[in-house]
Amino acid sequence: MPVTQRQIEEWLREDLGHHDVTNEVPGETTGRLVAKENGVVAGLDAASAVFEYLGVDVETTVSDGDRIEAGEAVLTVVGPTKDVLRAERVAVNIAGHASGITTRTREAVDAARTVSDSVEIAGTRKTTPGLRGVEKRAVVAGGGDSHRLDLSHMVMVKDNHVAEMGLENAVEHFRERVSFATKVEVEVEEAEDGKRAAGAGADIVLFDNLPPSDVQQGVELLPDGTLAEASGGITLEDVPDYAATGVDIISMGSLTHSAPSLDFSFRTG
Amino acid sequence: MPVTQRQIEEWLREDLGHHDVTNEVPGETTGRLVAKENGVVAGLDAASAVFEYLGVDVETTVSDGDRIEAGEAVLTVVGPTKDVLRAERVAVNIAGHASGITTRTREAVDAARTVSDSVEIAGTRKTTPGLRGVEKRAVVAGGGDSHRLDLSHMVMVKDNHVAEMGLENAVEHFRERVSFATKVEVEVEEAEDGKRAAGAGADIVLFDNLPPSDVQQGVELLPDGTLAEASGGITLEDVPDYAATGVDIISMGSLTHSAPSLDFSFRTG
Amino acid sequence: MPVTQRQIEEWLREDLGHHDVTNEVPGETTGRLVAKENGVVAGLDAASAVFEYLGVDVETTVSDGDRIEAGEAVLTVVGPTKDVLRAERVAVNIAGHASGITTRTREAVDAARTVSDSVEIAGTRKTTPGLRGVEKRAVVAGGGDSHRLDLSHMVMVKDNHVAEMGLENAVEHFRERVSFATKVEVEVEEAEDGKRAAGAGADIVLFDNLPPSDVQQGVELLPDGTLAEASGGITLEDVPDYAATGVDIISMGSLTHSAPSLDFSFRTG
Amino acid sequence: MPVTQRQIEEWLREDLGHHDVTNEVPGETTGRLVAKENGVVAGLDAASAVFEYLGVDVETTVSDGDRIEAGEAVLTVVGPTKDVLRAERVAVNIAGHASGITTRTREAVDAARTVSDSVEIAGTRKTTPGLRGVEKRAVVAGGGDSHRLDLSHMVMVKDNHVAEMGLENAVEHFRERVSFATKVEVEVEEAEDGKRAAGAGADIVLFDNLPPSDVQQGVELLPDGTLAEASGGITLEDVPDYAATGVDIISMGSLTHSAPSLDFSFRTG
Amino acid sequence: MPVTQRQIEEWLREDLGHHDVTNEVPGETTGRLVAKENGVVAGLDAASAVFEYLGVDVETTVSDGDRIEAGEAVLTVVGPTKDVLRAERVAVNIAGHASGITTRTREAVDAARTVSDSVEIAGTRKTTPGLRGVEKRAVVAGGGDSHRLDLSHMVMVKDNHVAEMGLENAVEHFRERVSFATKVEVEVEEAEDGKRAAGAGADIVLFDNLPPSDVQQGVELLPDGTLAEASGGITLEDVPDYAATGVDIISMGSLTHSAPSLDFSFRTG
Amino acid sequence: MPVTQRQIEEWLREDLGHHDVTNEVPGETTGRLVAKENGVVAGLDAASAVFEYLGVDVETTVSDGDRIEAGEAVLTVVGPTKDVLRAERVAVNIAGHASGITTRTREAVDAARTVSDSVEIAGTRKTTPGLRGVEKRAVVAGGGDSHRLDLSHMVMVKDNHVAEMGLENAVEHFRERVSFATKVEVEVEEAEDGKRAAGAGADIVLFDNLPPSDVQQGVELLPDGTLAEASGGITLEDVPDYAATGVDIISMGSLTHSAPSLDFSFRTG
Repeated sequence: MPVTQRQIEEWLREDLGHHDVTNEVPGETTGRLVAKENGVVAGLDAASAVFEYLGVDVETTVSDGDRIEAGEAVLTVVGPTKDVLRAERVAVNIAGHASGITTRTREAVDAARTVSDSVEIAGTRKTTPGLRGVEKRAVVAGGGDSHRLDLSHMVMVKDNHVAEMGLENAVEHFRERVSFATKVEVEVEEAEDGKRAAGAGADIVLFDNLPPSDVQQGVELLPDGTLAEASGGITLEDVPDYAATGVDIISMGSLTHSAPSLDFSFRTG
Repeated sequence: MPVTQRQIEEWLREDLGHHDVTNEVPGETTGRLVAKENGVVAGLDAASAVFEYLGVDVETTVSDGDRIEAGEAVLTVVGPTKDVLRAERVAVNIAGHASGITTRTREAVDAARTVSDSVEIAGTRKTTPGLRGVEKRAVVAGGGDSHRLDLSHMVMVKDNHVAEMGLENAVEHFRERVSFATKVEVEVEEAEDGKRAAGAGADIVLFDNLPPSDVQQGVELLPDGTLAEASGGITLEDVPDYAATGVDIISMGSLTHSAPSLDFSFRTG
Repeated sequence: MPVTQRQIEEWLREDLGHHDVTNEVPGETTGRLVAKENGVVAGLDAASAVFEYLGVDVETTVSDGDRIEAGEAVLTVVGPTKDVLRAERVAVNIAGHASGITTRTREAVDAARTVSDSVEIAGTRKTTPGLRGVEKRAVVAGGGDSHRLDLSHMVMVKDNHVAEMGLENAVEHFRERVSFATKVEVEVEEAEDGKRAAGAGADIVLFDNLPPSDVQQGVELLPDGTLAEASGGITLEDVPDYAATGVDIISMGSLTHSAPSLDFSFRTG
Repeated sequence: MPVTQRQIEEWLREDLGHHDVTNEVPGETTGRLVAKENGVVAGLDAASAVFEYLGVDVETTVSDGDRIEAGEAVLTVVGPTKDVLRAERVAVNIAGHASGITTRTREAVDAARTVSDSVEIAGTRKTTPGLRGVEKRAVVAGGGDSHRLDLSHMVMVKDNHVAEMGLENAVEHFRERVSFATKVEVEVEEAEDGKRAAGAGADIVLFDNLPPSDVQQGVELLPDGTLAEASGGITLEDVPDYAATGVDIISMGSLTHSAPSLDFSFRTG
Repeated sequence: MPVTQRQIEEWLREDLGHHDVTNEVPGETTGRLVAKENGVVAGLDAASAVFEYLGVDVETTVSDGDRIEAGEAVLTVVGPTKDVLRAERVAVNIAGHASGITTRTREAVDAARTVSDSVEIAGTRKTTPGLRGVEKRAVVAGGGDSHRLDLSHMVMVKDNHVAEMGLENAVEHFRERVSFATKVEVEVEEAEDGKRAAGAGADIVLFDNLPPSDVQQGVELLPDGTLAEASGGITLEDVPDYAATGVDIISMGSLTHSAPSLDFSFRTG
Repeated sequence: MPVTQRQIEEWLREDLGHHDVTNEVPGETTGRLVAKENGVVAGLDAASAVFEYLGVDVETTVSDGDRIEAGEAVLTVVGPTKDVLRAERVAVNIAGHASGITTRTREAVDAARTVSDSVEIAGTRKTTPGLRGVEKRAVVAGGGDSHRLDLSHMVMVKDNHVAEMGLENAVEHFRERVSFATKVEVEVEEAEDGKRAAGAGADIVLFDNLPPSDVQQGVELLPDGTLAEASGGITLEDVPDYAATGVDIISMGSLTHSAPSLDFSFRTG
């Protein structure tokens, strides 16, 4: 779902406070959200919604996922000066945050493409509290895969489940309890366990915290039709090595929890 | 204000979805939030509140602002396994996010201290939408200065105000309109304008986007009692140079918008 | 996610109004939620949460999904009389609503079991606005399958998508756009189209608004590994006929939008 | 009050999830909400508000309470295709739910009219949590009486009040404590107690769980000006018998808690 | 309904801001809410709820509606010093506001009792936005009558309705449209119109903006069983004159919109 | 920040209830908000927003802070009759409440001006819960000073801090802990302590609960550049005496917690 009115109200409220004097400016103005560095843009719907909440008209000149260059305007607004100024900081913050994620994702995808035409770069559930939807869509805008959106989207059989029930039993346990609409992924920490998980019915096997060589070995043991994912502290530099293992998906928490913001400025008049 | 029940409810809700099966585990468990790298911790009140919302008991073993080492537990919980597991991801995400900001702030403060005993490292309004309070308190936990908390906290006379009214008139204009409880800061882009701003009654002068040499010149022209701030794309590497200029405050948007998350894991049983 | 404090607050608020006099009764009381007819219980967590919000202690004596008989107590509470009385109507309403869905689901599952050991009875997105989670969990408590929890959980390729892009192109279009974590189901209105959909990569084929004979024909044409679902105005009476077709899933909107409430009374003292 | 923005946001949010791909369709479309069976329509304001929240224009071609036939359109919309599709399911769900209640109410009113020109068919507080207003207005649209809207609207003296204070004292107790603006109704379980309740000052007497013969006896004993209500598991089939007793109001929980949804489809293009 | 968690969260949030330093005090403390002037207390449940939200224990030593004297403690709290201090201002504000209304109501009731044993002093819908429930209960705590709680509680036939439909038609119009549970009051501006309204079926007649002599004339013309209300800018000084007219109810907007706060202080340690 | 949609929704909801019949009037109407007494207007943005929430057009003919006379219209609306009527009471209530505060503030400012050209009349944190922003802006509209907006806006060193740490230490303690953006005020109860507080670095000294003569003595002891405030039960009558002491600020809780509402009526057609 797009950002809600309630979210925007919270965002504006925490920035404006009870009595803001500096924005009490009469008249109308135009404004442009301008990139200060090269990157890939996202969060335009959220940034637009902030202005629109205050009755300011918005026109976007690029789309989420477009590469932009320093100096390029991504959004133009027209409205009462006081409302343009009130929305400015929040709009810049959300666009910068989302575009930072998208830019970082794009870099990871590009790094993967040097080695593999098909491997997916995916996000994780390591998102900033309150911004799950914005950040997942930013990953997708960068050419990435959203991965599971929330705990109800896909079952992940974790090491503690396996420790308690055994791998095969754990897979069966969850298969029986989830909808046919839900995929089941199994997290393993040894290459051979991937094969067992696939045999037990896993749709996807996650090789967690393994070096590329072990991942490759695990992938080779998997039957056709079972997807393989690598995860665990993988950095931008590691991407080609993991991409070369034959995995289908490389997931990286850093896409959402550690991407630096993309720098934008807002220029009025 | 500490994080609200409403915020926690939103954070949990966006992560759990409508029907999460993997956490339906009977019994009780203990769990520990453990650092995976060295850093400075923050966000413990928010992380604790997430567990407590679900009826899980929490004990913290360190305080916001404490330096922690890889392997160190910062939080211990006891409660129904299903509720511990439900809270886990959100708690890790918020603690990692806040601690990342605190760690980055601490680094900047330490860098400044190599040159100056007193210069403050301050945050900005470039925070992640929805997390203003959490992030401002994380900056403070790292030895930083919160800077203005929202638009109503302090007046910032900006270049567009100066362009429209002239520097002296703009300062006077806002002085008349804000409370005696509110300070007035003036943003200038030339060293000599700082003196004019101080003369017009500015409590603080912000030298924006100026090289250290110009900032130093500006600072020297200021009368006693007027504070000087430097800002504008200042990186960790730049901090000592700006600290050496004699400014009172160095503010850095990157503390909140671009600090990588601090890595934590959550271990049950 | 369990029902939120916010939901409970809304539920109580709409029933209590601004000044309720009849519940201003001093002292403490006990109360029991008692079934007035045979059925299968659900919604106990929601009903409990209503009492607990007002500080009333709750003990449940059965679990969601248990068959209960007329006269059987499912929940016992102890607390201030005024708070027990304030929570009563809302708790009865939500338990009756959820249990009605669970009971109806159980009947459908039992009807299906007379013919097939494995066919799933599934809910749909035809739920009561505001109660998606409660109703989906009630379907599961009755032995049913939740089906997709929301639009982001699974892709459903609909007739309008097919009309616009063609069947194969539509499947490919969405395959490229959704996560590896997300299944793709295709809705078809002719038996032979199921085979095409499977060939194009559908995980599940939905035979919509077809008589059992056509569904059976469609199922027989499907390759191994592709699931088949039947849907479209299927009543309790129709269930065995559809179950006999060999489909994997029978989904019924009536489970959630038209199940009569299960009758409960609340007895104090 | 009409449905609030907050409610609509909740309804959409629970159906859309974090990243819905299937509705990402460019262009504009028209759509019609079409009845698939005969009935009486309601909930048009709520269904319209869902579309309007997303910026889709709505025109209604019938009014709440109108009889509609299978194939008849009740609502026509025009807007961006993606927004029309996003609103569709929620709008159908709320219109179907409300219209089901209205249709069931109309049937009960019609059954009563075969015997009595004046007896009212009333709803109860047995409504679906979160939908009190929508459901009460649906009962009224079907020719029914809303009965008390919440606990603060009218005092109902219940058996537990009578057990504790005695009938006459209980009535006097509440008379003293409620506003002149509030009516007082007394629930009795024996025909003769109605007369006592009226004598004590009850505005309305509720004959609860009594057979029609006893209700008739109770009604005959009442003085002029005191209204009589019958309640307690009364079904559509029972309505004429109760209507013949001379009661003024027949209230039925099943109108709101067990009415099957009225079947609608939504057709685009 | 009592004040909600959501309300308390809003109240605290607007007073605390993002980073409050002055309350960061370690340890535990006790505190007492002490009256600084004589009056009648109310709002104790709301004030208590503010402390309890932050985990502070509360004991009340008087009840809403009790007369209190300067120096008397009405509430004692024990808890972490920082939480006691955080809640203090909000708790004092709500208790002072509610008690001011109760005290003013008590004065009006006492003034009326010098002339009449039975006339009710009632509030109106002229309440402070956001505090309808708190203020209505404060009026009742002062011995007053809540009057209609909201527009759905009782029908008020206003001059514009009469102008449009004629008095008798307007009464009949609304009688047909509202529940049997709802009373109908008619506002008249001439003494003789009261009799017409009663004849048309009004439960209550409101003599609006009439001097006491006209009200008395209107009251004398009313049949038995029809209540009479006087309203329209009636001050505390006017109360005895209106009470002597024989009206049943005197309603005063000033009880809620213009009562000065009752002065409380909060003393810790 | 202006009033939020959420606030307006709450305000309307508490006044309308679940099923309001009296406003179901077809057609369009105009309406005017008209003053019934002389005063100073405020709250126009809030009143306008209530109408606009329901789709009614608003034109304001005066501005917040303007003096208005009995009979003068401040707001004109055009829209569907039912929506104009629904918004009416809430809009009148908020405008009356805010204007009452503004009018009272204006009186206090005018009283101060008879003696001093510069002394500020300031509000306090003694505001009505839920209306901090509306009331602070109303004080400013009346020519007053908002004083600190929330606890995070300015530090107030209180008697309990001084008791615990000593005056000088307490000032230093908080100076170290708050941002350079935040002023520090110290509350003293003896004239000579003001000088000590100023010496310790207080920006402002608050002379609390002192007679004018003591305040004057305290003010005379203060160094240049330290502001002086008088507070503590100061009434309108006391204002000139305090204004004559030379203090910079006189703060009065009564401006917000005890100002009677300004009387408005709403006239349609």
